[in-house]
Amino acid sequence: MKIAEKLKLAHACANPPPATFSFEFFVPKTSQGVQNLYDRMDRMYDLNPIFVDITWNAGGRSSTLTNEMVYTAQSTLGLETCMHLTCTNMPVSLIDEALEKAYASGCQNILALRGDPPLDGSESTGDFKYAKDLISYIRKKYGDHFNIGIAAYPEGHPEEESDDNLLQYLKEKTDVGADFIITQMFYDVDNFIDWCAQVRKIGVNIPIIPGIMPISTYAAFIRRAKWSEIAIPQHFLDALDPIKEDDYAVREIGTQLVADLCQKLIDSGYVNHLHFYTMNLEKSTLMLLEKLNLVDCVKDSALVSEDLPWRKSLHPNRSKESIRPIFWQNRKYSYISRTSGWDEFPNGRWGDSRSPAFGDIDLSASQLLRQSPKRAFELWGCPQTLDDLADIFVKYLNKETNALPWSDGPIGSDTDILKASLIELNRKGYFTLNSQPALSAVRSNDKVYGWGPKNGFLYQKQYLEFLVHKDVAAKLLEAVEAHNTADSTGVITYYVVDKTGNLSTNSKDEDINAVTWGVFPGEEILQPTIVEKNSFLAWKDEVYHLLDEWVSIYKSKAIQELVPQEQLEKFYEMLASFSDNYVLCNLVNNDFTSANSVMFQLLESVSA
Amino acid sequence: MKIAEKLKLAHACANPPPATFSFEFFVPKTSQGVQNLYDRMDRMYDLNPIFVDITWNAGGRSSTLTNEMVYTAQSTLGLETCMHLTCTNMPVSLIDEALEKAYASGCQNILALRGDPPLDGSESTGDFKYAKDLISYIRKKYGDHFNIGIAAYPEGHPEEESDDNLLQYLKEKTDVGADFIITQMFYDVDNFIDWCAQVRKIGVNIPIIPGIMPISTYAAFIRRAKWSEIAIPQHFLDALDPIKEDDYAVREIGTQLVADLCQKLIDSGYVNHLHFYTMNLEKSTLMLLEKLNLVDCVKDSALVSEDLPWRKSLHPNRSKESIRPIFWQNRKYSYISRTSGWDEFPNGRWGDSRSPAFGDIDLSASQLLRQSPKRAFELWGCPQTLDDLADIFVKYLNKETNALPWSDGPIGSDTDILKASLIELNRKGYFTLNSQPALSAVRSNDKVYGWGPKNGFLYQKQYLEFLVHKDVAAKLLEAVEAHNTADSTGVITYYVVDKTGNLSTNSKDEDINAVTWGVFPGEEILQPTIVEKNSFLAWKDEVYHLLDEWVSIYKSKAIQELVPQEQLEKFYEMLASFSDNYVLCNLVNNDFTSANSVMFQLLESVSA
Repeated sequence: MKIAEKLKLAHACANPPPATFSFEFFVPKTSQGVQNLYDRMDRMYDLNPIFVDITWNAGGRSSTLTNEMVYTAQSTLGLETCMHLTCTNMPVSLIDEALEKAYASGCQNILALRGDPPLDGSESTGDFKYAKDLISYIRKKYGDHFNIGIAAYPEGHPEEESDDNLLQYLKEKTDVGADFIITQMFYDVDNFIDWCAQVRKIGVNIPIIPGIMPISTYAAFIRRAKWSEIAIPQHFLDALDPIKEDDYAVREIGTQLVADLCQKLIDSGYVNHLHFYTMNLEKSTLMLLEKLNLVDCVKDSALVSEDLPWRKSLHPNRSKESIRPIFWQNRKYSYISRTSGWDEFPNGRWGDSRSPAFGDIDLSASQLLRQSPKRAFELWGCPQTLDDLADIFVKYLNKETNALPWSDGPIGSDTDILKASLIELNRKGYFTLNSQPALSAVRSNDKVYGWGPKNGFLYQKQYLEFLVHKDVAAKLLEAVEAHNTADSTGVITYYVVDKTGNLSTNSKDEDINAVTWGVFPGEEILQPTIVEKNSFLAWKDEVYHLLDEWVSIYKSKAIQELVPQEQLEKFYEMLASFSDNYVLCNLVNNDFTSANSVMFQLLESVSA
Repeated sequence: MKIAEKLKLAHACANPPPATFSFEFFVPKTSQGVQNLYDRMDRMYDLNPIFVDITWNAGGRSSTLTNEMVYTAQSTLGLETCMHLTCTNMPVSLIDEALEKAYASGCQNILALRGDPPLDGSESTGDFKYAKDLISYIRKKYGDHFNIGIAAYPEGHPEEESDDNLLQYLKEKTDVGADFIITQMFYDVDNFIDWCAQVRKIGVNIPIIPGIMPISTYAAFIRRAKWSEIAIPQHFLDALDPIKEDDYAVREIGTQLVADLCQKLIDSGYVNHLHFYTMNLEKSTLMLLEKLNLVDCVKDSALVSEDLPWRKSLHPNRSKESIRPIFWQNRKYSYISRTSGWDEFPNGRWGDSRSPAFGDIDLSASQLLRQSPKRAFELWGCPQTLDDLADIFVKYLNKETNALPWSDGPIGSDTDILKASLIELNRKGYFTLNSQPALSAVRSNDKVYGWGPKNGFLYQKQYLEFLVHKDVAAKLLEAVEAHNTADSTGVITYYVVDKTGNLSTNSKDEDINAVTWGVFPGEEILQPTIVEKNSFLAWKDEVYHLLDEWVSIYKSKAIQELVPQEQLEKFYEMLASFSDNYVLCNLVNNDFTSANSVMFQLLESVSA
């Protein structure tokens, strides 16, 4: 959605409307840095920014990376994204490529910038000289598809001494089609408010979004201000200079100073949206938001009313997507990537048309683990025995580790009530990959389980997925069948499959089991997660492939240097045997009104 | 579905499989007779016959009527239907027409008969002389589409003296493609069993379905036996002759005699399905089924597992239909007819593609009331005041009347728990047309509310639809809005519309409210009834049209002769004013976990 529209919507919903905000991220230099930033952006999604923007690094690998990051932010992370685009030194062919990719990602916002001239003082190359040329070009080529943002300099620009000229350029950029302004960072709030008045006076009426730079350390604070050639008000210096050696104090006091600045901006009436230069960091921005009481404040807005229990993609092809298999619950990068080629996404009902397409992905060519060898070793060490392996799972359940090979991020708090039972299972030979508790008529605004529109009722069937020794699985299936015969009201359905694809199930081929659904006023029933055979078989391939990948990255030089060969050999052997002898199971207790303990007791009775 | 397949399915599900049964109906002479028979067939649906058959009346209006009845039985009543078709005196063009219509109705079963020769002894005309010619023709033209049944005469045929020849004809008919045999009526069970043995001996192995004639009165019993030239065993006469003047006793004893006969048939092993010649009557057949303990016995079979809360149509175009608007809940003839032209039926989700098509029907040309003037007068009299009108609604709720202009049949027992409140409302100026109570996690095998597969959980939002004075409606909407503001968890959504189409609602245009849904093991959520705007507006037209039609049929000669003009004038006037001043409302309490009384109290508070 366009930023200007989102701002209008967000500020229409309450009286007085709370200020909203957005985050800028820059493109990291390494691919592990990109993965880490994705994880950070993923967490910061929960703060409900109206949008994020990704900076442009002209030329070479990093500009492609800007496009890649825009795609991931938009499609996988579901973050409304604004792409920076500079025209200095950019031939129109590269600009076309960047815009096409942004368009294809569903990105609808471009921050059109001139960009810095060559450092050596030579004349810029490129087909467009000024940002306004780029704006005109985008408008001509894409009509109204993009909202176009422009930069502004409330404290002047190093290359232009005349403030009047700067205002004139701003007016020209607006006249050729800009939709919003994002300003350079600043600390002088009075000057900024004066400047806003001048902007309005010359007839520029598009939203002014102030660029806010949090203060993390004193050195960085001074360096950035100097680099941007902006004034530092005396009271900033008075407050920070005496404590400049104490990073903690600087951050505390600095946050208060910037928060006061933000509050003044909001109170001025010129500003209702704050754009944070995060510098790819989380902490300072979060502190600022907390100080401003802006955390959670847009939760109730019209913008988040179409929530689903999983993160909605903003890719245009996926706009109607409303159902996913539960298996990839903790693997959204992989799910989005596996399904990116689909023409159409399941909406309302799963249908069976999509299922075979899961097989299209070539797992042997994929890097699905999302961890560098070193990072993987930090996370999981080098388990030597099944007990060591179980320890990793238990640590994950205890939130002492933030990832498993099968889970991109930390475990969600929705499984908290299962934690003790899950740990117990992992101690008894069940390696649990995924789970959800049974829910019945939980309100949609529930702090832990809530999703979807107001005044709804949410339901879940208990789901449990694990790897277990094939001999235990055989006994388990007998126990499940006995349970189903004895208690005809509480049918447990299962799929059990080994590495090679031998499947046992008590479901029919065409069965699609809705395991999460919601009932809302005036709506059809939403059923956003399901369990079914074809996608489970595709997931099975991924589960075992991730084991192989784990082994494979530990054959890298980095790990070979770190871990004695003997230990590595034992690790390879253990995982190989695990992969051969452990089968992947999922169980659904279809009686969602019964206690979660029913299924756990069944599992424990078998392992005992 | 084909009868032979249905029999296989029905008898595969239990051990020993219960006997199954089917009903024959003949084409009534008048259209009111047809309507009445439909109502009867509708009731007899609940007995779970495997199929019904409709006799063929060669030539003229009644053969078209056979096709019409096959269509209605199949599409509207959801009864698997077998169409009789005779070839005597039938040119192939008429046979083609009949078969085409049967095909288009989704009928997959034809009882291929020769038919009676002309009564004057002249040679039959028609393109086929024998049933076997007809069978060959159907097979040639339709391949395997139809199951073809044939008639057989265990006690001989008036035109053929040789039993061997008769068996030979049977063999020939089987060899050209017959799938099952339905026999002539008989009372001599030993002879029948001998005959079965002979049939099997000559290599005829298709199912033998005995035709069973219940005994209702002594005179009819004797007459039918004579007419069919079948033997009456002495013990029948011994038992019935002494009591022949006592119809009640004859039916009691007769039922026992025929039940014994049926039991012997079943015990013989030749027979597992009984075909009842109902003579369009309900009572004798029902008594027989009860005596044989066959009522309810197929409820659990695989055949009824895909039940929905409304009667599933067997028309092939509608095979995937799984959602309907609630408004026509008691008007299935009208709903099927209004939607018969759709290319596709909503499945899983309602979608909005269908809605406009509701308008296609030309109400001014339709007869929607389904009652002759006389029958309407018997049902509803000639109300003079709104209180009189309310009396009709109250009688309907008390099951003292079996229809309202807006309800084809008696009120269902699912509204029993609302009865007292509904009566109260009708006494206070709300004329209730349709309602359902809230349900939460009711099991799918519930005697009153149950539908769908085993081990499911059923839900309903409370629904209430009524006509009310526009002034009361205005106050009601205020009360609803106040309720929604005060109790944000229990949102009541409403649509209120007057005769001319002025609509008030608190729902959005595109909202589709699922008001009945079910959760089943291993399945997606089923949501078979919904409330939404477009279909409600179409329903509004029907509601007011039915009022007009009521007035219009009372202008017929039959009523003019029966009711003083003065009373009629008052009736016309009262209904005209009712139509102008009463608006159609529906309310849904979206909090299906709250008590039904919440909505009733709200309504009563306004009318007080």
